[in-house]
Amino acid sequence: MTEKNKQNSDLDRLREDLNNLDDQLKELIKKRAEIAKNISVIKEDSNLPIYQPSRELEILKRLYNDDHHPLNIQLVWNIWRSIINANTAIQAQLDIYIENNIELAKRELILNNFGSQNNLIENEHPLELLAKQNNKNNQIAVINSNSPLIEHIEEGSINIISVLPLINFDSNNPSLYILGKRNHLNTDEDIFILKVVTDLSDGPLSKNKINEISEIINQDIDYMQQISEQSILFALRYKKIDYDDLVIKIKSKKYIKTAAMIGQYAAPLDLRR
Amino acid sequence: MTEKNKQNSDLDRLREDLNNLDDQLKELIKKRAEIAKNISVIKEDSNLPIYQPSRELEILKRLYNDDHHPLNIQLVWNIWRSIINANTAIQAQLDIYIENNIELAKRELILNNFGSQNNLIENEHPLELLAKQNNKNNQIAVINSNSPLIEHIEEGSINIISVLPLINFDSNNPSLYILGKRNHLNTDEDIFILKVVTDLSDGPLSKNKINEISEIINQDIDYMQQISEQSILFALRYKKIDYDDLVIKIKSKKYIKTAAMIGQYAAPLDLRR
Repeated sequence: MTEKNKQNSDLDRLREDLNNLDDQLKELIKKRAEIAKNISVIKEDSNLPIYQPSRELEILKRLYNDDHHPLNIQLVWNIWRSIINANTAIQAQLDIYIENNIELAKRELILNNFGSQNNLIENEHPLELLAKQNNKNNQIAVINSNSPLIEHIEEGSINIISVLPLINFDSNNPSLYILGKRNHLNTDEDIFILKVVTDLSDGPLSKNKINEISEIINQDIDYMQQISEQSILFALRYKKIDYDDLVIKIKSKKYIKTAAMIGQYAAPLDLRR
Repeated sequence: MTEKNKQNSDLDRLREDLNNLDDQLKELIKKRAEIAKNISVIKEDSNLPIYQPSRELEILKRLYNDDHHPLNIQLVWNIWRSIINANTAIQAQLDIYIENNIELAKRELILNNFGSQNNLIENEHPLELLAKQNNKNNQIAVINSNSPLIEHIEEGSINIISVLPLINFDSNNPSLYILGKRNHLNTDEDIFILKVVTDLSDGPLSKNKINEISEIINQDIDYMQQISEQSILFALRYKKIDYDDLVIKIKSKKYIKTAAMIGQYAAPLDLRR
């Protein structure tokens, strides 16, 4: 046997091994879809949203705990995304309302996360579209994390329920917020989004005021994000804390107009060095 | 137990089942990556391209032969794409030179197919970029199937080696051509791309001339595509036929300037009704 022939027969043998593995994978993936189908029936009976970002993060964090060499967590997570998205697709199509001016790289983030099986609807007013719909179990909106639309999110049934990306390599500031019907699953590592709006008649939001509010919050702030000259978001790590009490304390400052929890989501996987 | 509690415990039990399946999937996916790693070593030793579209179509066609209910072939193929792309990523990054003016829907096709792990390089002259590189084993170009650049593809080392999409639901005309180093794997269902250039001094390419050339070809033409007023592509299904002989016959017509095979690829999966 020549060297060339030996390489070809080695290749053929390894490809046969891959085919055998693929047959086993097919069986498992089919079984997984059948279970997901059963879950979707219960979700429908219980009026639960199809998209469950905190459950997805639970799956991601379980994956992260294992050794995948020669793969890495990002590659493995891409595989699970396509498995999860296939299982979502057999439950229903998601209507995803996307803010108009989302740049290409972030669009790719959305496409990578949700796949191409859903209805991607670009619109100037994604939140209004979402609010108008009666059945919010298969509807979400995606906006820039620095979108002026954040100013209009109120405490209520439509809130920030997740972020993208779900794996942080360099920053813990999200690129995109996902909005939808409030999520029912709490995790041990939830992040709460507190929106504080100040009274402009007292002058624009200053560093001093931000420091003062931060001191009242008095716990780990995951990130802060000023969204206008009067409003700021604080992302708070879940701790045993009375949020109603916190809101009352913040509101006691005379320059505060409103303070409200406008989001709760499972913390992304943090791989920052 | 209340109805609500029963639904929650049913959900928990089914999610536990999913977690167990995921553990088994993880093992198989890890094993598959290890084998792919071994294949990449042989490919490197043999100076073979990393991207092997005909092998990918072999995998797709194997998948198509099985029942995946409640999933369908498109959803299953999306999962395998992410598995294949993860296995490619641990071999090397692909440099993908993309023609500038590719519309959004087709860009998503590229992203869906190759994933986001590669270097996507947009350029006006993707073929020149590809031709300039010494190591073509990790480099490909993607162009519109009606791109004026097709006029410049010559018979030689860089040819059409695949198309997108790989699953045809309505038309067998490809949206995109993938170009790269000639592929070494022949399949039972290869498509050959024959480019015929006529002499403009004899007038532009007419219906009569196209019919005359088609008659010489005298076999199943998968699709035809006029690319300029002097040039036309014929996509021919693989049959036992002497292509050198065919080219000579076509060239015998006095209005023919050149006729050349500029591509060979495994036929996409055809699901047209």
